[in-house]
Amino acid sequence: MSNPFFENKGPISLFEIYDFLKITNRKENNFIFSDVQSLLNCKKDSITFFHSKRYKDAANLTKASFCLTSDLLKDFLPKTCEPIIVNNVLNAVARITEKFYPDSLEDEFDNKVLNIEKSDYKNIIHGKNVLIGENVKIGSNCLIGHNTIIEKNVHIGDNCKIGSNTIIRNSLINNNVSILDNCTIGKKGFGFFPNNKKNLRYPHIGIVIINENCEIGCGATIDRGSMSNTEIGKNSFLDNQIHIAHNVKIGENTIIAGQVGIAGSSIIGNNVRIGGQAGISGHLKIGNNVDIAGGSGVIKDIPDNSRVMGYPAKNLREFLRENK
Amino acid sequence: MSNPFFENKGPISLFEIYDFLKITNRKENNFIFSDVQSLLNCKKDSITFFHSKRYKDAANLTKASFCLTSDLLKDFLPKTCEPIIVNNVLNAVARITEKFYPDSLEDEFDNKVLNIEKSDYKNIIHGKNVLIGENVKIGSNCLIGHNTIIEKNVHIGDNCKIGSNTIIRNSLINNNVSILDNCTIGKKGFGFFPNNKKNLRYPHIGIVIINENCEIGCGATIDRGSMSNTEIGKNSFLDNQIHIAHNVKIGENTIIAGQVGIAGSSIIGNNVRIGGQAGISGHLKIGNNVDIAGGSGVIKDIPDNSRVMGYPAKNLREFLRENK
Amino acid sequence: MSNPFFENKGPISLFEIYDFLKITNRKENNFIFSDVQSLLNCKKDSITFFHSKRYKDAANLTKASFCLTSDLLKDFLPKTCEPIIVNNVLNAVARITEKFYPDSLEDEFDNKVLNIEKSDYKNIIHGKNVLIGENVKIGSNCLIGHNTIIEKNVHIGDNCKIGSNTIIRNSLINNNVSILDNCTIGKKGFGFFPNNKKNLRYPHIGIVIINENCEIGCGATIDRGSMSNTEIGKNSFLDNQIHIAHNVKIGENTIIAGQVGIAGSSIIGNNVRIGGQAGISGHLKIGNNVDIAGGSGVIKDIPDNSRVMGYPAKNLREFLRENK
Repeated sequence: MSNPFFENKGPISLFEIYDFLKITNRKENNFIFSDVQSLLNCKKDSITFFHSKRYKDAANLTKASFCLTSDLLKDFLPKTCEPIIVNNVLNAVARITEKFYPDSLEDEFDNKVLNIEKSDYKNIIHGKNVLIGENVKIGSNCLIGHNTIIEKNVHIGDNCKIGSNTIIRNSLINNNVSILDNCTIGKKGFGFFPNNKKNLRYPHIGIVIINENCEIGCGATIDRGSMSNTEIGKNSFLDNQIHIAHNVKIGENTIIAGQVGIAGSSIIGNNVRIGGQAGISGHLKIGNNVDIAGGSGVIKDIPDNSRVMGYPAKNLREFLRENK
Repeated sequence: MSNPFFENKGPISLFEIYDFLKITNRKENNFIFSDVQSLLNCKKDSITFFHSKRYKDAANLTKASFCLTSDLLKDFLPKTCEPIIVNNVLNAVARITEKFYPDSLEDEFDNKVLNIEKSDYKNIIHGKNVLIGENVKIGSNCLIGHNTIIEKNVHIGDNCKIGSNTIIRNSLINNNVSILDNCTIGKKGFGFFPNNKKNLRYPHIGIVIINENCEIGCGATIDRGSMSNTEIGKNSFLDNQIHIAHNVKIGENTIIAGQVGIAGSSIIGNNVRIGGQAGISGHLKIGNNVDIAGGSGVIKDIPDNSRVMGYPAKNLREFLRENK
Repeated sequence: MSNPFFENKGPISLFEIYDFLKITNRKENNFIFSDVQSLLNCKKDSITFFHSKRYKDAANLTKASFCLTSDLLKDFLPKTCEPIIVNNVLNAVARITEKFYPDSLEDEFDNKVLNIEKSDYKNIIHGKNVLIGENVKIGSNCLIGHNTIIEKNVHIGDNCKIGSNTIIRNSLINNNVSILDNCTIGKKGFGFFPNNKKNLRYPHIGIVIINENCEIGCGATIDRGSMSNTEIGKNSFLDNQIHIAHNVKIGENTIIAGQVGIAGSSIIGNNVRIGGQAGISGHLKIGNNVDIAGGSGVIKDIPDNSRVMGYPAKNLREFLRENK
């Protein structure tokens, strides 16, 4: 995963991880990890994790040399990948991720912002009271509306239009993107370990990527990813009041009407149309050229070229026949 | 349609339109159009359009002398109205509309606003950091909250209360209206021609009209119309987080609970009650005195005095009987 | 109800109430009321109200000496409680409540706020353009983001993090609470008496209470209560774009995903999980340890330890079996 914004404090050694997680069943040889990555993105020199049978195909293909997992899942890993057995895989991943990326756990407001008039970007067309954080790049011919806050770790391409009262952080915005008013883009996702005294947040090292020619409507919330990025493909248009959770990927030329919500880690194909107020559960795969009718609740994968409607969403014709 | 805000750059002649749209099948006599209008609003000296059989009754009644339409639809027009056959009616309308109203295509933030302290309205009761654009009129005894932006082309009546962090443009707000915090009112609607490289926006020459004694809850998005206005009737109350799309008309004394969404061009009657999270598809007609239960998904017209529930919404008693 | 923020202008005598409500059937002895309260919170020296059979059990237990009610309901009251018969109970309560608490009717923006730099809280870590109203207390080690407005009547505990562009009023925020960006917390609820000329607002004397360790996601609207408080229990987490209506109570350790809406006066237990976009109707009781699937529409009470799904929500297994 491209991760330009959170500083990797690694490398971290296998023995350090054993100590940190209090693992007694240890290998004799130490190993140096340069990063923590998801199963498919992981390189040989990084550590990965595998916490649900749902990802067994990805586990089988991982190139990682070591994987945090459970006793029940370890046999899905290839022989080239050594399991490190832990009681709670996601908790262990969170703790290791926090070791590599301590900056990714919290999401406090950026108190180092400057008024744009005092920044390098005072010459772009901007509204009143615009704030610009550290590590921000803005391309040529952009507009930024009133009261908008571009917090730290944001790269904006050329010809972008950002509305008023919008907040962006930890995001890559490519050329010709319009983001309208009152949006919040790039905050951490809604991910934590429930705990009866005090829930524990897990780190979010992913960012938000919005590709060329997209439009994001008013009041959108687009959360950054935990272990991968949240990404919206080229020329996709989102209407008002849409919620995109962490790790979601949306394809190209996709059109999403108002008040739609997409839960964490779901993948939406190209040329998909989603009607108003539809909801898509987490960890699903919606194919290319899919039409999802307004108000639908999608709770399982949808193959390419399907038209669905209902809650739970099913074949459109079947739904309409049953609901004459 | 009353259209006080976008400047009409017409007249435009029939021969100019032939040239612009590359139409070869031409009438011999030229004609001068003063405006472009919808079927029912169109006067003799303006051009109209007819793109869907759904509007065949309106087509039959149009007073326009010329109409952009397709070969399949042309026979629904009265003899007094000459068809101009094009391949893609809506695309042609958008291009002609842009000719008449070039300012209506884009929706950039208003960078000519002044702090209210420097405007003609410094004496009304207002919060900190309020911005006022050009062509804004505000009546007597109004309140405007902190960080609110009244962009260009807004007329506000007497005794209105505008909350904080709200953005309004291209809108007529009548007397005794309350608009709460964090609203975005009057931006262009979610209308465009999908195109695999770069979607094409169509112009929005409509405005938002909010009539006397209405209340608009926090976080509302009310988009302005494309070819007609978006309008909310007297004494209608909207709860929080409601989305009203372009061209929607809402009647008088209507009550709409939180998180409801109404898709483009639907018409809602008087004394209608809509429960929380209900959704209404586009281009529908909901009669007077209709009750729509919370969570319903309305996908067809609803006659006067009905009570409906479900997705798709049906007679309330029938729904409850089937879902005991 | 603890009600630290709205000033009680009482006491008010029984004879004053008779006169004000034009009641002719009068007791001979006067009585002095110190407050107006709901059935179960009411003490002997206060006046209460009883407007719906749904609350007959509470009516039977009330300790109030006098109760505004209707002829049909009066026999549910204990002998210790004298009925005062009125035509429209809620209207009468609203008018009496307004007598006790005249400040609770309107919800205008707080125009006495100061920039935080000029307030007692200039030393806490804060963003640009933060505004602080009267009767605000902020604990130690708090953060307040840019453009955030803490209006009058807000107490914030220690170690709290308030995001940017957020508005809070009439609220008690306990220790270790995070409130993210673009929220509106503590405004009056969506409660009024419909009237064909001009709807009449009723007073909201409740506040919002958010207990320790809670997190409130971006874009939340949490309305304050009318006759009781809106309250969120310890360690409950709310995702983005959630709407919590007036008088709602949410228990401890509850997790609510994005775009959920909870209508007025519903009570949600401890350890409840509510999936994205679910809606809960008003005046319901959801037990402890309940799972409500995403997209569900809950229209009746749910007992402890249930798992429900669907619209209307029913037993999860039953729903899935019927919708294979």
